[in-house]
Amino acid sequence: MALMETGKYSQGSLLGSVNPDLASERQTASFSVEKLTAWLDGALRSPWPRENQYFESQNERYEAAVRKAVHLQKKMDEMGWTENGPEFKYIYRALSGDLAFLLHRIFTRSISMLGSDQQIAKWIPLATQYQLIGSYAQTELGHGTYLQGLETTAVFDITTQEFVLNTPNISAMKWWPGDMGRSATHTVVFAQLYVNGKCYGLHPFIVQIRSLQDHSLCPGITAGDIGPKMNFEHIDNGYLMLQNVRVPRENMLSKFCEVQPDGTYVRRGSQKINYFTMTTVRISLILDEVVIPLMKACTIAIRYSVVRRQSKLKPGEQEAKILDYQTQQEKLLPQLAAAYAFYFISDYLQELFDRGYREIQRKNFDMLPELHAFSSGFKAMVTQYSTSAVEICLRACGGHGYSLLSGLPSLYTKIVASCIYEGENTILFLQTARFLIKCFMAASTGQPVPPSVTYLAAVTPEKCPAKNKLDFLSPDIYTEAYQHMAARLINSTAAKLQDLVQSGVKKHDAWNQCTVQLAQAAKAHCHYITVKNFAETVEKLETQPGIQKIMKHLCDLFALHGIFSNAGVFLHDGYISGAQMDMVTASYLDLLAVIRKDAVPLVDAFDFTDKTLNSALGSYDGQVYQRLYEWAQKSPTNKQISPAYERYLKPLLHKTLSKL
Amino acid sequence: MALMETGKYSQGSLLGSVNPDLASERQTASFSVEKLTAWLDGALRSPWPRENQYFESQNERYEAAVRKAVHLQKKMDEMGWTENGPEFKYIYRALSGDLAFLLHRIFTRSISMLGSDQQIAKWIPLATQYQLIGSYAQTELGHGTYLQGLETTAVFDITTQEFVLNTPNISAMKWWPGDMGRSATHTVVFAQLYVNGKCYGLHPFIVQIRSLQDHSLCPGITAGDIGPKMNFEHIDNGYLMLQNVRVPRENMLSKFCEVQPDGTYVRRGSQKINYFTMTTVRISLILDEVVIPLMKACTIAIRYSVVRRQSKLKPGEQEAKILDYQTQQEKLLPQLAAAYAFYFISDYLQELFDRGYREIQRKNFDMLPELHAFSSGFKAMVTQYSTSAVEICLRACGGHGYSLLSGLPSLYTKIVASCIYEGENTILFLQTARFLIKCFMAASTGQPVPPSVTYLAAVTPEKCPAKNKLDFLSPDIYTEAYQHMAARLINSTAAKLQDLVQSGVKKHDAWNQCTVQLAQAAKAHCHYITVKNFAETVEKLETQPGIQKIMKHLCDLFALHGIFSNAGVFLHDGYISGAQMDMVTASYLDLLAVIRKDAVPLVDAFDFTDKTLNSALGSYDGQVYQRLYEWAQKSPTNKQISPAYERYLKPLLHKTLSKL
Repeated sequence: MALMETGKYSQGSLLGSVNPDLASERQTASFSVEKLTAWLDGALRSPWPRENQYFESQNERYEAAVRKAVHLQKKMDEMGWTENGPEFKYIYRALSGDLAFLLHRIFTRSISMLGSDQQIAKWIPLATQYQLIGSYAQTELGHGTYLQGLETTAVFDITTQEFVLNTPNISAMKWWPGDMGRSATHTVVFAQLYVNGKCYGLHPFIVQIRSLQDHSLCPGITAGDIGPKMNFEHIDNGYLMLQNVRVPRENMLSKFCEVQPDGTYVRRGSQKINYFTMTTVRISLILDEVVIPLMKACTIAIRYSVVRRQSKLKPGEQEAKILDYQTQQEKLLPQLAAAYAFYFISDYLQELFDRGYREIQRKNFDMLPELHAFSSGFKAMVTQYSTSAVEICLRACGGHGYSLLSGLPSLYTKIVASCIYEGENTILFLQTARFLIKCFMAASTGQPVPPSVTYLAAVTPEKCPAKNKLDFLSPDIYTEAYQHMAARLINSTAAKLQDLVQSGVKKHDAWNQCTVQLAQAAKAHCHYITVKNFAETVEKLETQPGIQKIMKHLCDLFALHGIFSNAGVFLHDGYISGAQMDMVTASYLDLLAVIRKDAVPLVDAFDFTDKTLNSALGSYDGQVYQRLYEWAQKSPTNKQISPAYERYLKPLLHKTLSKL
Repeated sequence: MALMETGKYSQGSLLGSVNPDLASERQTASFSVEKLTAWLDGALRSPWPRENQYFESQNERYEAAVRKAVHLQKKMDEMGWTENGPEFKYIYRALSGDLAFLLHRIFTRSISMLGSDQQIAKWIPLATQYQLIGSYAQTELGHGTYLQGLETTAVFDITTQEFVLNTPNISAMKWWPGDMGRSATHTVVFAQLYVNGKCYGLHPFIVQIRSLQDHSLCPGITAGDIGPKMNFEHIDNGYLMLQNVRVPRENMLSKFCEVQPDGTYVRRGSQKINYFTMTTVRISLILDEVVIPLMKACTIAIRYSVVRRQSKLKPGEQEAKILDYQTQQEKLLPQLAAAYAFYFISDYLQELFDRGYREIQRKNFDMLPELHAFSSGFKAMVTQYSTSAVEICLRACGGHGYSLLSGLPSLYTKIVASCIYEGENTILFLQTARFLIKCFMAASTGQPVPPSVTYLAAVTPEKCPAKNKLDFLSPDIYTEAYQHMAARLINSTAAKLQDLVQSGVKKHDAWNQCTVQLAQAAKAHCHYITVKNFAETVEKLETQPGIQKIMKHLCDLFALHGIFSNAGVFLHDGYISGAQMDMVTASYLDLLAVIRKDAVPLVDAFDFTDKTLNSALGSYDGQVYQRLYEWAQKSPTNKQISPAYERYLKPLLHKTLSKL
């Protein structure tokens, strides 16, 4: 029995060596980690130190984010890097987005897109040099998703050639805009435009809110920070009230609409392109804000699960690595497969988007509805799935996962926001559903529909042809099952909708009464496309057989996990029988043991640096307990004797001295 | 168009009046809220102010928790209240458990239960007066669920009549014990006892860790706070290392085991009762730490959903309350039904426990296995279900739900811990499964089993007899469906287990290969009992027809939501057909609209004070936007101009002055 020696477990002694359990997992990889890493193109090395982040207050997090943003901008100027270049992307990922002035970028983008040439010439150079800090004030306390309901007003005053902006109501206060709480000097305010008493709807206005001299609020402006949130403490999400704030006529962004000096309202060009911006944002957030965090959570949980040993699989043996328990595999490995599936679907969406963009440049807007529907549905599905996946990873690490030092709580509290921002998920699913129902109706009457949805009208066999559990490792078999299921859900919901309308229910009520099923159908469609795309990605890997093999396993696992977890929709019409579902379950559980062997190399391939992961449980060297202990010692709770001792405890405890 | 007047929306102007949308919901209640409240016995009025909690640091939260604990103890002494009395329970709930020294109570309880009469006489009076602060050091960095694996050692030194305690390894460091990081002067340490080189297993020792004089660490002790966690910031969860720490022989708690002066080890009495303590804790946490938070989340989300209006159900109409959308109802109302279901199951478990306790007092330990299995399985099911329910409530409130000021993030980050502490849920489900498999085997061979599991051997009809959607509002129909499903899952998993063993797989491997399905079967059993108990509770309400009617709706909703969401397990063997599943869906969706009418009164009946809810979205008066704004202004982020301005922004912005 070893007795402890002083200093043996103090600072740094085990760091530098790799935990042998982790090391052995890497030696048995069935494929080349380097090749997979290269293929994923996932180099994420970080130049910034990240220590102490878990101990910082909201004020400190904000200050650090401003510092990083300003330094980064300086560096970008020096190096000639652009916002869309690979360097910025790389740094953004390495920093996990912990930067100020992301809304400033939206401010700039909105002026570039919605501003006239003169407006662009005036504002953009200032903005790109951080000589003003911009924000983007759209959402109000009372309105998020329903933009038409926004209440802020901008009334044209012909005598002074100004717009007079007002917050008519507490619910009209701008609420949530990033960079507005403490940083912004200017913002783009969306307001209902009134000219001569007539409302022309929402328009964007550049409004200065803070002095460039001393940063004090401008006359008529009330603004501040909305306070603590579940995460994003580094961002100063703000509120803004406007009271008779006057801006010159030239401050209405006027590429598409203008109020002329005499009060004439002129609209020009197409606003359809705005539609396309939301699509861009939704597609790009899938990778940056969702898939990357999910990959991190998998990396942390899987590495920890081969270092952590608990209880015994067989009596008399050493305690087992927890990843050797079937239940732990069943928690983590499907999430790992999902991380790969969503990485591939984000690629697929990017390609679809690029194709659409080329068409739009040729003034062909035909792909817009499909792009909008896809970006909405996939944003909703991927964020929802990944949020629950990160939660599973967190819980699978037990008590230590619950410590902020594991990195998992902050991954969760951040990713859960992605279900809400850039379109609340239920609303997004319903937009996808509207598109699918429309396509289904068109396809049923023989009209042309986009290739991605032709399956809605195609006839599929009524029974799944699988005869044994190995048949369910055939991508044709499971992809067809997903296709059948998605088509059936859309079909049956369309029928319910029609029945309701035919029975006299008003169209809007009928729609509302079908929304639970419509959302389910939209999700099923996205799930099907994700499985199909994963299978196609694997097929294309024929030149790299080692990687193809392991990717095939992951694809099978992702598909079978989906059938296992949503058995009802596959069994419902008997397409898959109960006996076949048992085969699915058997194949699914078999796969867990197969993939388990390569679990660590599969997350190593994501190639996160320890700094980017920022996790005491997930570091490459697996020195879990040592790092937890070292980090805990840095906590501010260990930096002082609490005043509570002097004030409350000392008087009580001193009474005891004589008694013990 | 109203223009804003100065001061119109400043402090307090709308508080005092109730939002008319909320008020009208209360007028149309189909039952008496007062009666339901009385029946629930849920008076939770709080005497403590709670403001600013959302802005406090970990240090500040800790200090506040100590202050409250010390004041409360003083009050209890003055009033003669006891820890098990109703007053303490009431205050604990009103404070949402935000108190220090909860582990001190476990310290006290462990001495009372495991200590000799002399030990009790010496330590308990000091502990109850807070003349020492105790903790309970069981879990180590490397071991939580598997107690046998704990590594801390206590070696008996016969020459000095002392035990020498050591932390032989970094993974043996005590980690997580509450009240240990900064407060405790003493702790009960669980360590492997060695006498003359022989290991006698885990035993509890009282160890002093901090000076009563100046609170400095005692010789050989290393201790501190484990740092930030996802919640519980008010608790100083700690770490502890022991290096040749000597305690007198009398400090081993010796009700059941003793080391005599000559080194003879004596064991006496039964330790079975320890088993029972875990059962107690698991049963009591269901109500206090899980059902109450779930009720709070429902209250917040449902009240907010009738104040929040967004978009239109019909063109031309006013914007609709979001609770009038089917998708919002489908998110929230099943969680409300679950809150009631779990409230009733916690009652059921308490009764079962009381019955068991009476038997144990008569030295009859027969009910222990059933009690252990039930407390484990229900703890796991209720915590898992409720955690996801609280998350649904949070997300259903959109962006504002994500603000800490909504109260929902802290409800979530706290309740998610309940899936891990007092037994990790998967391990608990597997313990329940072991009991169920044993009972199933026994029942199949005609041996007697506890009444709660006789159904495992009972024959149920092979097809659900429901003919139309109304049949699914019959508790007999759906209870039988649940029973059939649970019995089938246990039956088929037992068969798989047997097949594997008969085909030569070793027993432990076979068990591991079935654990995913075993956990599913255990959950199904608990779900069935919960539905059955809800139906029985409703039946007993015959003297209160108004309440019985609305409870019947909630019971139906809980049951049908479970079938709708787990359709696969009901469809699998054809017990419920696809056509019947459509009936379930139709009845389920119909119920949403029925219960929606009473949604607000149903949460009002939980009778939380605004202070206890501590939510800007969920207060009784529904002044959501006003309160969000007022609370945000108090945030520390609004108390200073950030140093980031002077340091980073001012130099940049001043360059702009000449240009604009």
